[in-house]
Amino acid sequence: MLSDLEIAQSCKPILIEEIAKQLGVLPDELELYGKYKAKLQLEIMDRLQDKPDGFYVDVTAITPTPLGEGKTTTTVGLSQALGAHLHKKVVTCIRQPSQGPTFGIKGGAAGGGYSQVVPMEDFNLHLTGDMHAVTAANNLLAAAIDVRMLHEKNQDDLRLFNHLCSPDKNGKRYFSKSMLIRLKKLGINKTDPGELTANEIKRFVRLDLDPDSITWRRVIDTSDRFLREITVGQGVKENMPRETAFDITPASEVMAILALSSDLTDLRSRLGNIVVGVNYGGEPITAEDLGVAGAMTVLLKDAIKPNLLQTLEGTPVLVHTGPFANIAHGNSSIIADKIALKLVGKNGYVITESGFGADIGMEKFFDIKCRYSGLTPNAVVLVATVRALKFHGDGNLEKGCENLIKHIENCQKFGVPVVVAVNKFSEDSDADVVLIKKVALTSGAFAAVVSDHWGQGGIGATDLAQAVIDACAGFDQNAFKFLYDLKLGIKDKIEIIAKEIYGAKEVTYSEIAERQISIYTDQGFDELPVCMAKTQLSISHDPSLKGAPKNFVLPVREVRSSVGAGFLFPVLGEIMTMPGLPTRPAFYDVDLDSESEKITGLF
Amino acid sequence: MLSDLEIAQSCKPILIEEIAKQLGVLPDELELYGKYKAKLQLEIMDRLQDKPDGFYVDVTAITPTPLGEGKTTTTVGLSQALGAHLHKKVVTCIRQPSQGPTFGIKGGAAGGGYSQVVPMEDFNLHLTGDMHAVTAANNLLAAAIDVRMLHEKNQDDLRLFNHLCSPDKNGKRYFSKSMLIRLKKLGINKTDPGELTANEIKRFVRLDLDPDSITWRRVIDTSDRFLREITVGQGVKENMPRETAFDITPASEVMAILALSSDLTDLRSRLGNIVVGVNYGGEPITAEDLGVAGAMTVLLKDAIKPNLLQTLEGTPVLVHTGPFANIAHGNSSIIADKIALKLVGKNGYVITESGFGADIGMEKFFDIKCRYSGLTPNAVVLVATVRALKFHGDGNLEKGCENLIKHIENCQKFGVPVVVAVNKFSEDSDADVVLIKKVALTSGAFAAVVSDHWGQGGIGATDLAQAVIDACAGFDQNAFKFLYDLKLGIKDKIEIIAKEIYGAKEVTYSEIAERQISIYTDQGFDELPVCMAKTQLSISHDPSLKGAPKNFVLPVREVRSSVGAGFLFPVLGEIMTMPGLPTRPAFYDVDLDSESEKITGLF
Repeated sequence: MLSDLEIAQSCKPILIEEIAKQLGVLPDELELYGKYKAKLQLEIMDRLQDKPDGFYVDVTAITPTPLGEGKTTTTVGLSQALGAHLHKKVVTCIRQPSQGPTFGIKGGAAGGGYSQVVPMEDFNLHLTGDMHAVTAANNLLAAAIDVRMLHEKNQDDLRLFNHLCSPDKNGKRYFSKSMLIRLKKLGINKTDPGELTANEIKRFVRLDLDPDSITWRRVIDTSDRFLREITVGQGVKENMPRETAFDITPASEVMAILALSSDLTDLRSRLGNIVVGVNYGGEPITAEDLGVAGAMTVLLKDAIKPNLLQTLEGTPVLVHTGPFANIAHGNSSIIADKIALKLVGKNGYVITESGFGADIGMEKFFDIKCRYSGLTPNAVVLVATVRALKFHGDGNLEKGCENLIKHIENCQKFGVPVVVAVNKFSEDSDADVVLIKKVALTSGAFAAVVSDHWGQGGIGATDLAQAVIDACAGFDQNAFKFLYDLKLGIKDKIEIIAKEIYGAKEVTYSEIAERQISIYTDQGFDELPVCMAKTQLSISHDPSLKGAPKNFVLPVREVRSSVGAGFLFPVLGEIMTMPGLPTRPAFYDVDLDSESEKITGLF
Repeated sequence: MLSDLEIAQSCKPILIEEIAKQLGVLPDELELYGKYKAKLQLEIMDRLQDKPDGFYVDVTAITPTPLGEGKTTTTVGLSQALGAHLHKKVVTCIRQPSQGPTFGIKGGAAGGGYSQVVPMEDFNLHLTGDMHAVTAANNLLAAAIDVRMLHEKNQDDLRLFNHLCSPDKNGKRYFSKSMLIRLKKLGINKTDPGELTANEIKRFVRLDLDPDSITWRRVIDTSDRFLREITVGQGVKENMPRETAFDITPASEVMAILALSSDLTDLRSRLGNIVVGVNYGGEPITAEDLGVAGAMTVLLKDAIKPNLLQTLEGTPVLVHTGPFANIAHGNSSIIADKIALKLVGKNGYVITESGFGADIGMEKFFDIKCRYSGLTPNAVVLVATVRALKFHGDGNLEKGCENLIKHIENCQKFGVPVVVAVNKFSEDSDADVVLIKKVALTSGAFAAVVSDHWGQGGIGATDLAQAVIDACAGFDQNAFKFLYDLKLGIKDKIEIIAKEIYGAKEVTYSEIAERQISIYTDQGFDELPVCMAKTQLSISHDPSLKGAPKNFVLPVREVRSSVGAGFLFPVLGEIMTMPGLPTRPAFYDVDLDSESEKITGLF
């Protein structure tokens, strides 16, 4: 029995230039990163803008269990079947994993068995550096916040102004682009620093950030639980201690922004819109106010370009961005999906994966990602396994299938056909598989298919692929609908998701949540979509409730915002934004073989 | 007058494949990162190992002033002159800059005017991600330290052992590579976890790290002064508050290790040797003991490969690693220099730059970098400017020249010829230039040449290039000598540098320094070279002493170690390992032009 890494290393990948060529990417649109990775230039979107889109398929899953359901493996295996066996044009779109889990508990995330993305080492390590670019942009903003409060504390208005607009070599003062945007926001229509009145100078230079209001945190792409609660600014020269935290990089709003941006200009504008806290008057203070959004954009100028890799069977994969599926929307980038849909064209397929179960990643795929992209999905693949469904039924498969049924019903609320993929394990009994298929079809699934892509690669997933083709062919795109209208109030939107998707009978709000909802409504952020931050281990907010919970009361503890990314996120429980390392982290196994210099122990 | 960025953007660079080909790099030895950046595979060292080396020239400078002396600009200009005008084979070797200063006070570091490395945007931003890989490796070790203390606190020996050596799928327990190394260190020659006695288990699982002894810090490549003194571990689930700090990434020992390693195996071993603190018995605890050195090596598998870029005139540049010049040795990598010397071959030139003034970067270049690499330098270029020397003389050039004289004398102590490069400014008077040249030659410089590479590019530096060619041609490599013998005691080595290079009359030691010297001697680390951590603003330890201070007493406050990198570092004053951001950081100017999508404002 070979390990995933051994299978991946035994595959001789095709040169990425060749993969790109077959896909219709022009040489000038490709930036090579070694022989087997490349970035796609965004210019490709202009060239292909008039081409028709291919079919757009989201891969989601039942509620996750500790056993693993093989969602990425299915995503990859389905693509291999479509591309390498049924000879369709296909692109797989997935998220880049975080190094935290790779070296901590989870290990690699490139699929498994004979359905993997290669080179899996690069995929699981730095890839082309996008994750690090997000870290850098996030932390430049964080540094800017604290240091600005320090400088405002230590300097009077004029001194601040003279530093912010110091004369250049020729004695000329000028406003930077971000300063002009801030002036406009303040209603000061002047472009010459010399013309500001003392009062205008004061309003311009004083952000007056309330330290207690700051929600922006630093990030690091390492599972480091000792950074969950820290105090910064304890140096004698700073002497402004403040309690804060590091999150892991995929939890950064910058990551969500990168994933939801449609181009560089949109990225620049979303970064500027990031709200880091409020001033003492309660007004939102943004990254633009801090003058750092341009530099953040520049730090992300390469990260915005999708990364081209391949499956074990040589079908193209776009790996791009990796927002968490709890406090963010948990889907890979809009840009990658858009480019992929044009590249595969009419009769081609884009297989994109969303995070956690269908109640989370798929709901956000539809209501947030598709809403911002304007793209219409054609089908959903819902991954299940016998053993995971048994786990949901405490050993009883029929009972556990309630979880599957609820997710199938949820998919249908968006009007999109669902193909259930039973990801095969060798110990599965025929009777169990038959039962799942029957339940799925009775509940309204378009099809239910067993798939053995893990053991066989693409050839093991051709039935699944054919079912997906049929589902797409029979779908009228006008049938797709969002779950809620953006114009509804914040509470209305929360309640629709809670009742329709989760099965709650009622929603309650903490005092703080009530206050936040009222503030966001006043600030005009109430028309943003809602991105629920909740456990992935249950369709409800309570991780102990398996199957398909009903009649529960959903408590909203808090409502926070990611204004730059473009959503509000109600918090339904403890949300983990920084994983820890176990006693024996996965890094113990990762090493270099000193003879071959090959990597060992990445799973 | 064009800005540096405008000049750089107006240059149409040559495809990096072409640059590589001209340099004799085979296609398989090149990993492209886009069109204008590439990494060199380390296999090139095997292929070229029997080729003769070229001439090896270190570029250093007088003691830095706030005015800037243009050391990188001279390094690049000299290379352009040698390669593009005198038709020699030449490679420039320089360090990768940190993003901290780029967005903070300093701005870019790619040279200036018509002597720059391009693409300067990439050079100043992520390049190929090496800096981020160092951050990731450093911080994985940091996370491993704190979490190990937590797990040891919460678990008894057997539970720890059962977690560290848990049975795999087949019920078999095994030791990882790093565990076997630790067992060997403990004198336990067993390979089957089942055979350990209770006492051996205890010794194996308990690192017993003394939290007060931990010297390993987290790093981030952002100038963030609020991270200078922090408290971590304040979460209720951790509840082990500990005061620590973030340094900026170039200050990481991992960066110094990467720069001093000769290949992957050497890197693996140095990372394992990192001492993070001591146990309660005073014994050093290493990264190997924590099981993380293999994963750190894997994180650095691409960062160890030098990056190929080019100058504005199409000569090749290897940009690789960026260790600080105060707490580390301040020179680019041994691997890049070694490959470069083989690539240029006999009669070719490698121009490598060392950090800060000659008292720091050059001394460490000789005594640390050349000692570990076994390479022999052929000449030193010492950069000076009229205005900086006047600054050293408080306006009096002749007095300021004492600084130049001292550095020339210092170079000669290593037996290597010195070429003084007077980096020209338009306002320099002929008389001033004549005086500097006269002083330089009288003090023993091989030559002293005015150079206008900033305004003219390589053509402005041909006189300098010819002087360097002549210096190399006339040099007997046997004349090169280290300043001190490694077998000398720690204090002897410190005193030789203090008296010979800095001009101190005496060295004093704090109580703590005395104790540390005694501990390191007992631990057997006394034969490591000494890497002085001191201000760059004076040849002495006191930043206010300009020119060539004499008769001062040099106080050694502390002696610390970077055992993995392979040096001890005596600390002579406050050492800045995390810069701050000014009121108007450089990031204010950095933005994207929304029309052209070109970067603006990087200097």
